[in-house]
Amino acid sequence: MGQAHRIAIIGRGTVGGGVVDILAREGAVIARRCGVDLELAAVVTRTPSRQRSQALPPGCRLSADFGLVLDDPSIQTVLLLVGGTTDAREICLRCLTAGKHVVTANKAILAEFWDELFACAERHGVCLGFESSVAGGVPVIGALRDGLVANRIDAVQGILNGTCNYILTMMEEAGLSYDEALAQAQALGYAEADPAFDVNGSDTAHKIAILARLAFQTRINFRQVDIRGIEALGPGDIASARRLGCRIKLLGIAQRFPDGISLAAAPTLVPLGHPLASVRLNYNAVNIEADAAGPNTLIGQGAGARPTASAVLSDVVAIACGERALSGPRAHGAPLFDLPVIF
Amino acid sequence: MGQAHRIAIIGRGTVGGGVVDILAREGAVIARRCGVDLELAAVVTRTPSRQRSQALPPGCRLSADFGLVLDDPSIQTVLLLVGGTTDAREICLRCLTAGKHVVTANKAILAEFWDELFACAERHGVCLGFESSVAGGVPVIGALRDGLVANRIDAVQGILNGTCNYILTMMEEAGLSYDEALAQAQALGYAEADPAFDVNGSDTAHKIAILARLAFQTRINFRQVDIRGIEALGPGDIASARRLGCRIKLLGIAQRFPDGISLAAAPTLVPLGHPLASVRLNYNAVNIEADAAGPNTLIGQGAGARPTASAVLSDVVAIACGERALSGPRAHGAPLFDLPVIF
Repeated sequence: MGQAHRIAIIGRGTVGGGVVDILAREGAVIARRCGVDLELAAVVTRTPSRQRSQALPPGCRLSADFGLVLDDPSIQTVLLLVGGTTDAREICLRCLTAGKHVVTANKAILAEFWDELFACAERHGVCLGFESSVAGGVPVIGALRDGLVANRIDAVQGILNGTCNYILTMMEEAGLSYDEALAQAQALGYAEADPAFDVNGSDTAHKIAILARLAFQTRINFRQVDIRGIEALGPGDIASARRLGCRIKLLGIAQRFPDGISLAAAPTLVPLGHPLASVRLNYNAVNIEADAAGPNTLIGQGAGARPTASAVLSDVVAIACGERALSGPRAHGAPLFDLPVIF
Repeated sequence: MGQAHRIAIIGRGTVGGGVVDILAREGAVIARRCGVDLELAAVVTRTPSRQRSQALPPGCRLSADFGLVLDDPSIQTVLLLVGGTTDAREICLRCLTAGKHVVTANKAILAEFWDELFACAERHGVCLGFESSVAGGVPVIGALRDGLVANRIDAVQGILNGTCNYILTMMEEAGLSYDEALAQAQALGYAEADPAFDVNGSDTAHKIAILARLAFQTRINFRQVDIRGIEALGPGDIASARRLGCRIKLLGIAQRFPDGISLAAAPTLVPLGHPLASVRLNYNAVNIEADAAGPNTLIGQGAGARPTASAVLSDVVAIACGERALSGPRAHGAPLFDLPVIF
């Protein structure tokens, strides 16, 4: 087998469980494919004693103390899979400072503390991977950073929140009210018990801030994203959109204009012929307007244990293989331009 | 500026011109973004004396003799942008043997001589990049190789030929006959004067063979692809499809079954709700069924000077940055499995 690359998971929630699951099922194939053996050395969770059906691999330590990750020099990459901003930012900075690569699905810390986090990664010569932070199993970060590297990006529009897309689809197709559609999304596990961050547009705003940073390589102040949610939408809005030949989608939109960029997360009228209009249910989709490649649309599962874990592991493999695309100005979206935000 | 990486273009056709164009417009930004300065050292064409409007950068040599590329040790990567199989295979092998990385858009040599070409690259410690060989400006090779690296791929279906998709769209939407739609595609420059390889399914077959190789990591014998074209389709077929709630699309299909894989390029009934059904005109699209990430659909421009050149340059940047994803078993789709083809 190839060389070993030792990893630790911080946060044994949905995504952490997905990573453990994929490694158990596909670890051997990934090792043969990539020449690196991903060894799960530790899992840090607040509730290490909770009974779980999922087994950890032999030799994997389980603890509530993330200091054991910092203190173990054999651990090369930390998978930071906890939500929120306060603890997650702190853990991220401490891991980077300890010389460990970090891969995270936490879009909030990226959107809000981008410059601080990447400056820290750069200073300590490590990578900060975030493919999983936007659109889950859809490799949109790689598309922007690598596949479209030779392009000037003119606009990015995305359906970036599966909960909202499910609600809007059900309002349109099944004639449900907003509250009924939300209840259904919660029953299916698409929406959190407290869905505020999804439905008020904050989650979409975090994600479009990340995409805009990579797309335009300009500093993005998250506070400048114009954020509107879907909570106030009703059947009348859906019907009005239909009369106009449109559907309402909650979009993240980042657009380049001659004198700056615009940044928004808002319910938007999407014409039926547009590639984003036919993206239904809990799917995510991103449309990238690239000057040479033309428009690129990527559609897939934007959340859930295994799609998000798939994205997390793509970053881990790239880091384990020593790929340089995950460091330097391209990876960080380091500011090459200084584009003001237009309101 | 970053370190220099010297490249040569062999074949000054549509795609070669696109590469020269992008480098002229965006070369400085690419250099700042990636830390490598792509220097066009030579262009080899059969007709070096033909008058062209496009200027070459200062210091770039123009010649009919590709020996000058082999003999120039400063040239690190060759962009092999000629069609056909005989000369292209020979040039590819000679460049690889001379220790030069090769990036090619030539799907035919890849589909037909995969094992020989990659064995040669491996032997000489160089990369063979082929993002541009399938779906032009859509970074589908990177998605399969890197973004979905942690997945078992169960199926790939793609609209891989823009000419055929344009013809089928016009037959369906404008009620044109096959001949009328083909003539219109030719008038728009989407179809060659001799469109045989497009419309008879060969081009799609080459591309699905490449995708299958990466997706399943099993040896693919191109002769085993079941190939059918669109030449015999008429208005009656379009109408029958419509009655069944479907559209006819020329698809490349590679599918995994318990006892092997199937490989086909054929006109296919696609239900209207399927993500490939709404892909119109000359667009390409690829749908990838990935076990962890779920279905991923990528849509964009599959041909043309600038979309294809965008993909070529993404490979060149990856090579210039020393990314290892472009060598080794993952990049080559080196056979890890031995899956028979089911007919």
